[in-house]
Order: sequence, then C-alpha cells, then structure tokens
Amino acid sequence: MERIYRDPVHNIIALSEERPDDALMIRLINTPEFQRLRYIKQLGLALYTYQGAEHSRFTHSLGVMHVMTRVLDHLGKRHRISEEQRIVGRAAAMLHDIGHGPFSHVIETVLRQNHEKWTTRIIADPETEVYQCLAGVDPGLPGSVVEVIEHRYRPAFIGQLVSSQLDVDRFDYLLRDSLMTGAKYGNYDLEWIVHALDIDEAAGNIIVSSNGLYAVEEYLQARFYMFRQVYFHKSLRSAEAVLMSILRRAVKLMEAGKLNFVVRESVMERVLAGEQLSTSEYLKFDDHDVMFHIKQWTRESDPILRDLAGRFMQRRLFKVIDIDDDENARKAFVEEARGRVSRLGFDPEYYLVADRASDIPYYSYYRPEGKGRIHVERDGRIMDIADVSDVVRGMKGYALHRLCFPAEAASLIIQSVIRPVIR
Amino acid sequence: MERIYRDPVHNIIALSEERPDDALMIRLINTPEFQRLRYIKQLGLALYTYQGAEHSRFTHSLGVMHVMTRVLDHLGKRHRISEEQRIVGRAAAMLHDIGHGPFSHVIETVLRQNHEKWTTRIIADPETEVYQCLAGVDPGLPGSVVEVIEHRYRPAFIGQLVSSQLDVDRFDYLLRDSLMTGAKYGNYDLEWIVHALDIDEAAGNIIVSSNGLYAVEEYLQARFYMFRQVYFHKSLRSAEAVLMSILRRAVKLMEAGKLNFVVRESVMERVLAGEQLSTSEYLKFDDHDVMFHIKQWTRESDPILRDLAGRFMQRRLFKVIDIDDDENARKAFVEEARGRVSRLGFDPEYYLVADRASDIPYYSYYRPEGKGRIHVERDGRIMDIADVSDVVRGMKGYALHRLCFPAEAASLIIQSVIRPVIR
Amino acid sequence: MERIYRDPVHNIIALSEERPDDALMIRLINTPEFQRLRYIKQLGLALYTYQGAEHSRFTHSLGVMHVMTRVLDHLGKRHRISEEQRIVGRAAAMLHDIGHGPFSHVIETVLRQNHEKWTTRIIADPETEVYQCLAGVDPGLPGSVVEVIEHRYRPAFIGQLVSSQLDVDRFDYLLRDSLMTGAKYGNYDLEWIVHALDIDEAAGNIIVSSNGLYAVEEYLQARFYMFRQVYFHKSLRSAEAVLMSILRRAVKLMEAGKLNFVVRESVMERVLAGEQLSTSEYLKFDDHDVMFHIKQWTRESDPILRDLAGRFMQRRLFKVIDIDDDENARKAFVEEARGRVSRLGFDPEYYLVADRASDIPYYSYYRPEGKGRIHVERDGRIMDIADVSDVVRGMKGYALHRLCFPAEAASLIIQSVIRPVIR
Amino acid sequence: MERIYRDPVHNIIALSEERPDDALMIRLINTPEFQRLRYIKQLGLALYTYQGAEHSRFTHSLGVMHVMTRVLDHLGKRHRISEEQRIVGRAAAMLHDIGHGPFSHVIETVLRQNHEKWTTRIIADPETEVYQCLAGVDPGLPGSVVEVIEHRYRPAFIGQLVSSQLDVDRFDYLLRDSLMTGAKYGNYDLEWIVHALDIDEAAGNIIVSSNGLYAVEEYLQARFYMFRQVYFHKSLRSAEAVLMSILRRAVKLMEAGKLNFVVRESVMERVLAGEQLSTSEYLKFDDHDVMFHIKQWTRESDPILRDLAGRFMQRRLFKVIDIDDDENARKAFVEEARGRVSRLGFDPEYYLVADRASDIPYYSYYRPEGKGRIHVERDGRIMDIADVSDVVRGMKGYALHRLCFPAEAASLIIQSVIRPVIR
Repeated sequence: MERIYRDPVHNIIALSEERPDDALMIRLINTPEFQRLRYIKQLGLALYTYQGAEHSRFTHSLGVMHVMTRVLDHLGKRHRISEEQRIVGRAAAMLHDIGHGPFSHVIETVLRQNHEKWTTRIIADPETEVYQCLAGVDPGLPGSVVEVIEHRYRPAFIGQLVSSQLDVDRFDYLLRDSLMTGAKYGNYDLEWIVHALDIDEAAGNIIVSSNGLYAVEEYLQARFYMFRQVYFHKSLRSAEAVLMSILRRAVKLMEAGKLNFVVRESVMERVLAGEQLSTSEYLKFDDHDVMFHIKQWTRESDPILRDLAGRFMQRRLFKVIDIDDDENARKAFVEEARGRVSRLGFDPEYYLVADRASDIPYYSYYRPEGKGRIHVERDGRIMDIADVSDVVRGMKGYALHRLCFPAEAASLIIQSVIRPVIR
Repeated sequence: MERIYRDPVHNIIALSEERPDDALMIRLINTPEFQRLRYIKQLGLALYTYQGAEHSRFTHSLGVMHVMTRVLDHLGKRHRISEEQRIVGRAAAMLHDIGHGPFSHVIETVLRQNHEKWTTRIIADPETEVYQCLAGVDPGLPGSVVEVIEHRYRPAFIGQLVSSQLDVDRFDYLLRDSLMTGAKYGNYDLEWIVHALDIDEAAGNIIVSSNGLYAVEEYLQARFYMFRQVYFHKSLRSAEAVLMSILRRAVKLMEAGKLNFVVRESVMERVLAGEQLSTSEYLKFDDHDVMFHIKQWTRESDPILRDLAGRFMQRRLFKVIDIDDDENARKAFVEEARGRVSRLGFDPEYYLVADRASDIPYYSYYRPEGKGRIHVERDGRIMDIADVSDVVRGMKGYALHRLCFPAEAASLIIQSVIRPVIR
Repeated sequence: MERIYRDPVHNIIALSEERPDDALMIRLINTPEFQRLRYIKQLGLALYTYQGAEHSRFTHSLGVMHVMTRVLDHLGKRHRISEEQRIVGRAAAMLHDIGHGPFSHVIETVLRQNHEKWTTRIIADPETEVYQCLAGVDPGLPGSVVEVIEHRYRPAFIGQLVSSQLDVDRFDYLLRDSLMTGAKYGNYDLEWIVHALDIDEAAGNIIVSSNGLYAVEEYLQARFYMFRQVYFHKSLRSAEAVLMSILRRAVKLMEAGKLNFVVRESVMERVLAGEQLSTSEYLKFDDHDVMFHIKQWTRESDPILRDLAGRFMQRRLFKVIDIDDDENARKAFVEEARGRVSRLGFDPEYYLVADRASDIPYYSYYRPEGKGRIHVERDGRIMDIADVSDVVRGMKGYALHRLCFPAEAASLIIQSVIRPVIR
Repeated sequence: MERIYRDPVHNIIALSEERPDDALMIRLINTPEFQRLRYIKQLGLALYTYQGAEHSRFTHSLGVMHVMTRVLDHLGKRHRISEEQRIVGRAAAMLHDIGHGPFSHVIETVLRQNHEKWTTRIIADPETEVYQCLAGVDPGLPGSVVEVIEHRYRPAFIGQLVSSQLDVDRFDYLLRDSLMTGAKYGNYDLEWIVHALDIDEAAGNIIVSSNGLYAVEEYLQARFYMFRQVYFHKSLRSAEAVLMSILRRAVKLMEAGKLNFVVRESVMERVLAGEQLSTSEYLKFDDHDVMFHIKQWTRESDPILRDLAGRFMQRRLFKVIDIDDDENARKAFVEEARGRVSRLGFDPEYYLVADRASDIPYYSYYRPEGKGRIHVERDGRIMDIADVSDVVRGMKGYALHRLCFPAEAASLIIQSVIRPVIR
C-alpha cells in the first residue's frame, strides 16, 4: 500500500509500504519522537512578525526527507548509489532536527540545551522507537545515521546533502518559510538545482554542474534575504528577547523557591530547575509546555515575571534599535541605556537585552574537508563557487547589534546623549 | 504609517494608520481577544491527516477581512457604500470567529460551549478591548457589528458577505485550507468571482453577474470536495472521536473527584467542571490548555483516560468504518459492535463512537429572506443559481454514518454477523 | 549530454543523449516535420478572443511527450513496461499532431484536408525524416507508432494513453490552454492523476485507482468548462466563420481564374486549387502561408474577398447569436436572415454562416473495446466512471447552434419577426 | 459594459466602457496599428532556444498598460494625479512599442529602421487610427503622449514610469518572458515594488520607499539574469546571425536584380529595396512577411540565400563561440577564422558573423535629469540606489564577444592556432 502525504510546498510525498526504504520512513514518521515535532514550531516566535509562520518542524522534516529522495533519485541516474546509502541518507535527512526542543534559539541559550547533541542521543538511545525502527533494519543503522549527521560517513556526499551550505535542509526551509511567511524572498529554482547536482566520484563530494551556477547564486541570495528579512527581523528578535527574560526570571524564581506556578513533576519543572533530563523526559518537551506556563504566569505574584508574561501573551514586545558597530561606542551606549531603564523602574537584568545576529552568506576555504563548501564544475575543473562567481564574492557578511527594551523607555533611550542608531 | 501583513494566500494585506477604517482594523488585530486566535488551529485535528494544516484562526480571520475589503472596493466602484457600512462590514468579517474556542467541533459537543454566542458576547461585552476599540469609533458600532453577524443589519448584502453560501469566510478558508493541507480541491477563481459580484439595489442583496456563473459553480464544487476529502476525512473524524472520549472521561472523573491532574484555578478546570465562564475567563482558553492537559493525562491513574491520552499523543487513533444508511440496520450493527468491544475489555462508552457527517452542497429556497441563497443575474433577471445551473442542481446532499473504535477491535467488528460496511 | 527544454507548464523537460529513447526524441524534435509545428498555432484563431493563446502545436507536442514519459515512469514502478513499448508510446505521443495544418478546424472543412490521415502518412512515408529517425532505431517502428495512433497496438493501454477520454494529449492541452488563455477553467491536479493511474493487466487497459476518482472528476469538469468557455467561445467561432468565408471565396475566385494574388508554385496555390498534395508539399504548409495571403488579399480587386480579408486583419469579426434548438424554427429563422442579409447587399453565401458546436463531456459504453472509456477501480472491481460518479453522470451533453453575420446586419436580423435568440 | 482581457501574467485586465480613460484604452486596442502587434513576436527568434517564447508584443503591451494602471492607482492613494496625467501615462505605456517591426534587433541593423522613431511617428501621424483616437479625446493628446515617450512631459514621473531603469515595460516583460520561456530567472515581487513606489513631489520623480529596497535589488538581479540567460543566449544570437546574413544577402541580390522571389508591391519588396516607407506602408510589416519570404527563399537559385534560408527554416543554426576580450587578439582570431571559413567554400561575408552583446545592470549618475536612475528613500533622504545597496554596486557590467559560423567549420576554427575561447 502507498501512503501519501500532501504538502503545501512539494505537493505529493508518496511512500510505498512495499519498498524497504519507504517502509522504514513510514515507521520513522509514526514514532512518538517524530510525532513530537508537530508540537514544535519551525520558526518559533516568527509568527508574531509574519503571522503565517505557524508551521512545525514535522512538516519541514518530512519535506527534507522528500527533497533528499529526489536528489538521490536524480544522482542515481548517473551514479551507483547503494540501497544502504539511500536508507542512511534519507533517514538522516528526516531525523536531522529530531533533537530540537521548543523555541530552540532562546531555550538553548537560557537553559543550556543543545539540540544537535539531543539529535544524536535520540537516534543512538536503544530506548527510543526511532532507534528501534532503524536497528530493526540493520543493527548498525543507528550508528550510520549518526555518522552521516556528524560528517564521518563515507562517501562524504551523503553527509554534505544533509548539512552543508547546499543541503536539503535549506532546500526545504527556504521554500517553506518563504511560502508560509508570505515574504517571498526565499524562492529559488529547486528543480533546476536538483537537476544540476552531481557527484565528484574521485573525492566523493557533491558538485554543481556548470549550468546550475546561476540557480545556486539565486539560492544563496534567497538565503541571504531570508536571514535579513525574516530570521533576523527586528520584531522577531524582540519577541525572543522577551521570552529570554521570562525564562531567565522563572529560573531565578525557581532557584529562590518563589515560583508559584509550575506543574509538578512536569518536564518544564525539571528544565527550569536545571536538572539533567533523560531522553524520555526530553522527548516530552514541546511548545505547549512553554506556552501554557507563560499563560499561567500572567497571574504570578512576582511582578517582573507577571509583567513579562503579560507583555508576551498580548504581544506588547520590546522596542528594538540598531546600535553602533564600534565596540566601545556600543558599550558606552548600553551602559547609559541601562541607567535610564533603571531610572524608569525596570530591572535592566530583564528589561534591557543586547542582541547580536550575524551572517556570512557564503564562507569558503576554512571548513575542513570541504564539508560546507559549494563546488561547481567549470570547463571540466571543479572549483569553489566563490572562485567563479562575482555574485557570490559580492555577498558580504555582516553583524547586527541591537538593544531591546520596553517601549515605555524608548524616548528616554533614543534621546540619550550618546547616539545609538546607525541604521 | 502603513502596516503590512504578508499572507501565504493573499500576499500583501496593507493597512494604513491614516485611514480611519484601516486604523480600526489594526487596533482590533492588536486586541488580546484577536491575538488569542493565534493559539486556536483553524482545522483543529486535521493536521493528523493533512500534516500541513497547522494554520490558526488568526491568519484566516485576517484573510477574511482582507477579502471583504477587496469585495467592498469592487462593489464601491459601481454602488455607493457608506463609510459606516464599510467599517461595520470589515469589522464583522474580521471578528466573525472571535468566539471560537479550541477544537470547537469537539469541545462544543462535549462541553456545551457555542462559539457563535461567544462571538456576539465578546463583541458586545464592554469589558473587552474589541468592544472598546469599536465603541471608540462610534458607541453604536459594537451593536451594528452584532447585527451584521445576526443578519439583522440593513442593507442585507453586508451580512450576506459575512455569512451565506457565498461569503468571504468561505472565500478565504477554501483557498487557505487547500494550500495548507496540500489537498488542492479547494481552489477556485477568487479574482473572477470578486469581479462578478454586484448588488441588487432594490432588494439590497448580493448578486452574481452572468459572467460569474461558471466561477461560482467551480467554487461550490471546491467546497463540496473539501468537505468530502478534508473536513469529513475519516482519520480526522477518528481523531475527533478520541478527543471526544478523552474529554468525556475527564469530565466524568472530575465529577467523581478522581481527576488527578488539572491545573488549579485554570480555565480548563472550570470548563471540565461545567461551570459558567465569564467572558474574560473564556478568553483564556485555547489549544495549549487542551493539549497540555492531555499530555499530562498520559500519566493519570485512571486507566481509560491514561490509555486514551496516550493513543492521542502518539496518534494511534481509532479505526473508522462507514456503516449502513438504513437506520434500523445501523442500530442493530452498533448494538452488536458494542457487545464485541465490551468483550475485548473496552468500555463502549469511550471506545465506541458513532459519528455522523452530512452536507448539502447548495440549498435553495428554504432560507428566510434569501440570506443564504446565491442569486445570479441572467438576461436581466435575478434568479436562484439552482434555477440556471445544471451543475448546481446535480450536486447532491449526503450523510455519512461511521463507527469509530480501537484498531484492536477491528477484525472482531468487521467480521460481525451483521454486515456494516457500505462504502 | 543532456538537452533541457524549459516549459511554462511542466518546467524542466530533460532528455539525455545517452539514453536510447531520449536520443530518439531529440532526433524527432529536430526533424523539419516536427519543427514545422512551431508555425502552427495550437488554438488557431483563439488569440483574437484570449490574446495570450499564441502558443504553437510544437510546445504542446513536446509537453504531451513529457507527460507520457511521466506516466510511463509511474506505471513502470508497478508493471513491466518494455523498452519498445516505452519508445513507441513516447514517439506516438509526440507525433500525434504532426499532421496538423494551419487553422485545422477551418481549413479541413473548406479544403478537405484531414490531419489524422496526414499524421499517419507523414510517419509512414519513407521520405520524411520522422520516418527515417524511427526506422533508424528499428525498421518496424514507424508501423508500430501508426498502430498506436490507430489503436491497433497491444497492449492497448499505450494507445489509450495517447488518445482516449483520459489521455496525455488532454492532460497537456487543458493545462497549457488554461495558462495561456488566462481562462483558468482548465486547471486540475495532474500530479494526483498521474499518481492514480494503473494498468489492468488482464485487459491491458489503463485504470484509475479509487483514490483518483475525484481528481478525474475535476479533470472532466475542467475539460467541460474549457469547451464551453474557450474552444466554443462565440467570438472565436465568429473569427473562424470569417476565415471560412475568406477561403471559400478564394477557392471560388481561383476556380474562376480571378484570384489576383496567390504566390505561384506555392503550397497555398495548390491547396486553393484543390490539388492533391505530396507529403513534402503538405509539410511546407503553415500559418504564415494563410496569414500572408490574407494580408495581401486586403488589396484584391474582388470586393468580397477584399472586404472579408480587411475585416479579418483588423479583427472586425462577425456578430454571433445563439439560435433555437428546434430544427424547424431554426431553418425558418436562417431563411429569414438570409433574405435580410441580402437586402443589405451582402452575399449570404459568405456573409451568413451557420455554426454548430456540440460536446458530450463523457460518453460511456458505445466505444468499441473500451478505447475511450474511463475505468476506475472500486472495492477491487473495475467499473466505468459513469457507474460510480454522480458528478460524471450529471455532466450533460449539449449542442450550440449559432448564426454569424456582419455587425451591420445585426439590428435587422435580431429584430426579425421570427425570434432567434434562445440564450 | 466592461471588457475583460484575461492574461497569463496578470490574470484579469478589466476595462470599463463607462470610464473615459478605460474607454480610450479599449479604442486604442482596437486600432489596426495596435492589432498589428499580434503579429510581431516579443522575443523574435528566442523561441528556437526557449520554445515557449511565442508571445507577441500585443500581449506584452496590454500588460504594460495594466501595470501602469496599477502603479497609478497606488500612487493616487497618496498623491493627486490628474485625469490627464493618468490618460497620457496609460496611453504612453500601451503604445510605447507600437513602432516595433518584425525581429527588430536584426531588421533594424540590416535595414536601418528605428522602432523608436516609428513609435512617435505613428502616434503623431494624423492618418493613423491611434492618432485619431487620442485626438478625439483632446487634440493635444497625441503630442503629450509623444512628450512622455521622449521624457519631455512634466511631471517627470510619468515618463520615468514608461521608460527608465525601473519602468512598467520591464515590470511586465521580465515576468512575461520568464513565464513563457520557462527560464524562471525573471521572477521578482511585483506586488511589493508597486506597493513601495512613491513620488518625490519636489522633484516630480519616482522614488522607492525604504521597505522596497530588497525587492528592487531582486528586480535588478532578475533583469541581469534574463539578459545573461535569455536575451543574450548563444543560440538565440546564433539564430539572429543567420537571419542577418539572410537579409543582407537578399538586399544584395535585390540590388543586383537577382532576387527571384519577392512579392511585388509588398512592403517586403520596398524594405529590401531600401526605400523610404510611408507610415501606412510600415504598418503592414510584420513577422509573416519575413517568415513567408524566407520559406520561399529555400527555393531561390542563389546558392547562398537558398542555403541560409534552409538552415534557418530547419533550425540548423550557426555554431557560436565566445572570443577573447582583448581587442587585438580578437581581431587576429577573426582574421584567421575568416580564412578558414573561406577555405571551406563559405563566403565569410555571410558565414562569419561577429556578435557583441553588453549590459550594464545598473548605471548611476550619468543620465541627465535622473531619468534613468533609481531613487530610494532612506532615513528621510532620497538617494541613488547604488549609494545604499551593496548588491547593486556588486552587479558588474560586461561585454560578450562572439563569433558565429556554420557547424561544418567548427572543428577547423576551434583548432585554430590562435586560441579563441575564453568562456
């Protein structure tokens, strides 16, 4: 029998129970570990900025597996790809995000989780159904999938397809995030790129045929703009700043035994208490835990947590300004702002959040073994894309420094004697 | 200043703070009541069937308002539409779902809520920000918006656009649900329909110009298929059956004082206890409350609730079969199935759920004042669409009767002496 | 090496010179016979009604071949399809329109050509490059391709895919004509249908899996609306009526030795003279010949031809009215109209054109060997779609009777004592 | 009554006979001068490279007018735009290509026509229906439309919208050519750009709001890639080279009285004879004339013209190579190639064509009055886009030098002692 998963981005994702590799994918999808990804939003708080960004890591992960399948189908027309490579590659593509927790970007900073470690841990833990599904096919399979994710698997192109500067993860998320946010920056010609992918058999690397150069340039630009306009959007970062303060305050109250509301024996309680989680505990953690607790905290007795939770729920987020690139000027300004925020009665520990976001659109050369580099074929030679493309060389890295604080403090801070805004 | 909301369906939804009607829409969007809709999924549990159906009532409601604006812009080229009509119509379009709670289809059955009553109550309650925003423009405005929703406002076309068989609610949800589910059945030519809408000034009704007939036929077919293939999908109804049993069991345990986990003083506690909610309490209720509690109930001591919650979280839903249309045969079969489920140790109260879903693709004549009917212009006369369209007359109503039960009982029930499956 | 043909409908059509079947397709594309299709518009005069309908039979034919490839790829996952079947099927799909001349619908009526006969003649004539390409692969191949087109090839499903009520020709033209005309009626879910196609091995027929039923209904509706709204559009039929009169007048003048302008020894001269064409002569005939001659005829001395050519070039087409279904009433009315047109000084032979267009959206049963019928799988049985689908049964056949005449005569005719207009 | 033109790019283009500006547009569309554009392909010979590029200047011109309307509607929400400005702007947008002849890029080089001069001449010639339509509204209107096209009209933004580096012509053709060729490089976010356009009232210039910067960058990149990948495509330029040789040979034979086939008293005869055409003669000239004559020339007695015409009709085009940027090296190589082509018996006059194509993606500063420059608003100041955008500064101009010759000479030329190929 065939299972069909319809998808807003890729239309039909069909898996046949008769094909061993497809059958494994179906079983992996049905594990509770993979199902949990339904409850974790792909873009966390981005929906406060782009309201359509409500999609989960589940739909994304399915899409990543599907694109991997298409790429392997294409490569398989020209190169021999073993059944094992195919299974390992598809499983790794689908599971690459399995360790993500809720609002990873924020939670990992405050609560010192690391989704990448969790991913390999979940795959390698014999207690998980994911492990059991994989090992049911071949006892070495969980290990091989981890190797792919950690770039130790050979041939290297399997791992490169799963994560590099030209990987199926980005192939899916640029299109998906573009569609869902409505911010069309992330569109590029996936069909053409898939068509232009090839394998450099000698090195075992993924390469791009010369006729794919422009499409890859377009893809890198799409990524560049998505970072600038979506992932680093001021108001998204502002929502994250508020969430960060909420969690830091909750941890603080927890430590002091002053947090009134936290569900006893829940994963949230253990996370806030900074305890080590077992795999099975971690796997109970999702957006609902965080959102439900914040909603209850709007009734907390601690005025700071109560206020921050209220701001969050009603989307009265912090104001954000760009501040100077110069480090000394920046420090002086932040110091000044801290004083001003305090004077208004806000604890700067929670009401003044410095944020830094930086991106390098394409980095060459300095990654070992070419893991991340994009190789293109040109007149029979294989070259780094930066060596053949003006456009790629022209895309510059940048860092954004920002300061987030309550709107009530905005006029006071912006009128500071030290000029903050550079952009 | 202009506020731009990018949307996966409609692209740019632009509202200008300088225009009074737009400014009111912006203020309404920013109310906590409207923000709450972010936390209520438009299609409830449909995501277990169509994984992309993760969108909320927030994005839909914004879309409905936008389509209303476009329709009014179009009609305004040919007819005089007053500023008041415009404001009332757009506000009603945007707020028409404001009373929805989480998983309405299920919750309203079990817990006897009624989202339509809540909608008018929220709009008319002077404590809500929605009321205050509306009344800030004109003290009579909240009342007028309620009149539109209850089809008492004149001219009638405003109310017809908000809810009828050809309304902006459906215009948005067919396209949106189609896109998100990936089940393209709901596509139709919105541009053309908007273009073909007109007003019968004499009666104050919305009519469709003769060149819009085919597009409206296509729209009615789109709706028909969406009901068959999405909204009435077996596995969606199965998920709803499980949720229904969970809630009914939780209520039962609550009554008996045996529900271990429920957050004290939370809205969930009051809902399960069957208490009357104040507006402000109801407005705290969303998907997070339900999902968080179900997740905790996987650890309940009551074996039924624990089992059902586990099935739900891991998506081991009930098996569903279609059963006979004949009422007597159906009753006999259900009775037989009840016995068999019991013999397997399942309490049929929770493990055998009869489901009925019916649709009439287009109903003519029997709605008062033509509220719901679709009128088309033909050779200068205004006629009911069923009188001019073979296609519309050909679309037949139907009712589906189904029985839901654990997969473990499937073979036993399907091999019943009484033949159940008709389709 | 790979040849990539980018297509507005199907995006990438890739053919590899290394694959024998692809290599043959590339060679067929490059024959002068296939290249000629660039100069024949797919929808003839439809561009006067839907200005975007400027696409040629070349792009359509390429698309048909591509869809055939996709269908065969899909079927090949479940059934054994021989290399020969694949080559024959793809070649037949690509060449099915090779015999079309310019403005076939009109030209074939006036000048008694028959594109279907020309198609098989071109494929079977050893002088053509098409024949030589095919025979170069296998001397029996031209014959097999003809067999497919004439439904004598076995297994039958190959011929059914090339032409039937569910064939790759329609799959392509509905989507393409929809896109190009902008009249979105022809959209349907091609991906899903391709996915739902299967082979009934016992009978050798194409069947549709049960999950494809709705998509096929949608496809039949798409076809239905395209006929009503595009292919039978009044103003398209009016343009054809004028072209028909032009050609009939030119033939008449030719016979009388009074046609001043016709390029000597050109294919147009031979066609107008009613001579038998050799294959190589026929293959020189395309839209340019017709259009160039009409343009010159705006300077002819014969007033009728000059006037008609001028109307055509400046798109001052005939007025069209629908007339009564009743045959007697119709005849009486046409007789009356003939008199009135004459009284205005127009020769009714050229200035009064009766037009009939009829369609049966789906016909069951009365085609031999099930060639044209659509079979669907339902609960393990194979049934005619009309037996399982209310929608298909509901789509009724119809015939349109129209009368075309100069706009100058409109008021006179419409005010005729005999009432003509029924719709 | 409303006239609706459906369009593959813009969907519905609706014009109302009741609105004076729309009514004028309808009348202009119906002029024979505008109808002629149906017979002139927008991209000339590009269809030999991208088979879908079969669209005409008619559909494009309609699209340009439509985009102009949308831009003016948008600007009109914020600024006062007079009825006259609106009419002049829309008419100029629609008529900006009215002077184009067939295959302009080639024909204008060989036969010394100039479509821009013809455009203003057609608009200003009292004999044309276009002139009469315009003058019927206001005797000064034809003159004003010419002023817009020649950038003498004030306010300047009207002319800038019609032609500049950010104009409605490009807005339409990038999207249209992208769709039709299937080479998706030309996509960009038109909705967003239209939304971001504004008027600098002081200078009367079009400016882009700061939130439109990225969309304009994307638009400039789209244009850049379309030039590289479509308009300058090697095989398109090769087809043009063959057409150029055909026409140059025909002119030569004409001069020598040795051209057997040319339709007497046709516009083609006068064009080849180098005669001055009257407006009404020029307006008879379209693709059919050129294509029909080339087809006949496949039977000419002159071996060069016969051979070239045969190559063209069967698409056996010239081989093209890129040659060195260095002028001296290039000259030496071309000289060498000339000898080798001759030795094979080909007259290098017709069988060796040097081609140069160059593009500057964005030029700043050196256009008078800022006609062509793109101004963006940034922190309240109006700046040249090159001053605020790294991306724009990064797009470099380039020139391509190529040599075209028969494939038969390829090996000989490519093995030349002087190395030609640089790319």
